[in-house]
Amino acid sequence: MEQRLTFMTLGVKDLNSSIDFYENKFGWKRSELSNNELIIYQLNGIYLALYSRNELAKDATVDSVGNGFNGFTFSYNERSEKEVDDLIKGLRDKGVKIVKEPQKVFWGGYSSYIADPDENLWEIAYNPYLKND
Amino acid sequence: MEQRLTFMTLGVKDLNSSIDFYENKFGWKRSELSNNELIIYQLNGIYLALYSRNELAKDATVDSVGNGFNGFTFSYNERSEKEVDDLIKGLRDKGVKIVKEPQKVFWGGYSSYIADPDENLWEIAYNPYLKND
Repeated sequence: MEQRLTFMTLGVKDLNSSIDFYENKFGWKRSELSNNELIIYQLNGIYLALYSRNELAKDATVDSVGNGFNGFTFSYNERSEKEVDDLIKGLRDKGVKIVKEPQKVFWGGYSSYIADPDENLWEIAYNPYLKND
Repeated sequence: MEQRLTFMTLGVKDLNSSIDFYENKFGWKRSELSNNELIIYQLNGIYLALYSRNELAKDATVDSVGNGFNGFTFSYNERSEKEVDDLIKGLRDKGVKIVKEPQKVFWGGYSSYIADPDENLWEIAYNPYLKND
């Protein structure tokens, strides 16, 4: 895997409180990639996103309460569906826990999730709408 | 605040397991900025670091168990101690929760912590050893 990160998404309890914090306290401007449910800030090299905690856990197919979900996800974007499949195969061969098998998802992309030893979730995805770098 | 992020630090239960994951499964190389307790990976624009979960919570002056700690911190680096003081003053005036007042810390820097609405912690710091950008 290249040494990079595409997105970090915070799963938040109340989207409006979080928007107030990041836009009115920090003074950040949201990216045009945002919609009503997913608020995106373009930072230096990565995007920081805000999304409903329950919906984010659901997307990763983990329980939003208890120890199963640390409240955020990283996303590592690949350049095609095949690259996602190949990376997941390689990680599985190395014993990495696959949380969600690669699959086409509602937003039009292709996505999977793996877990690090602390159950921090990495989404491995192909997003046809995003410049991948 | 500028729309940027310097560090994200994961508070991990077992440093060796996490190192194995990021270096042997992901294949990442650690930065020379690392030491035995803090493992640093230079990514695109930001650093991702691994540190003991208990020590990270202690650094932020929060409880490492229960709901007080989400298991990671962001760091936003300023260019001087005065810039840290000025930013914290501005955030306090806007009603932001200050978790740790700005102070000189053991590693030679000047650091403070604030919390977002989900208790995600942002360290606001000046690090004389790091190029600040």
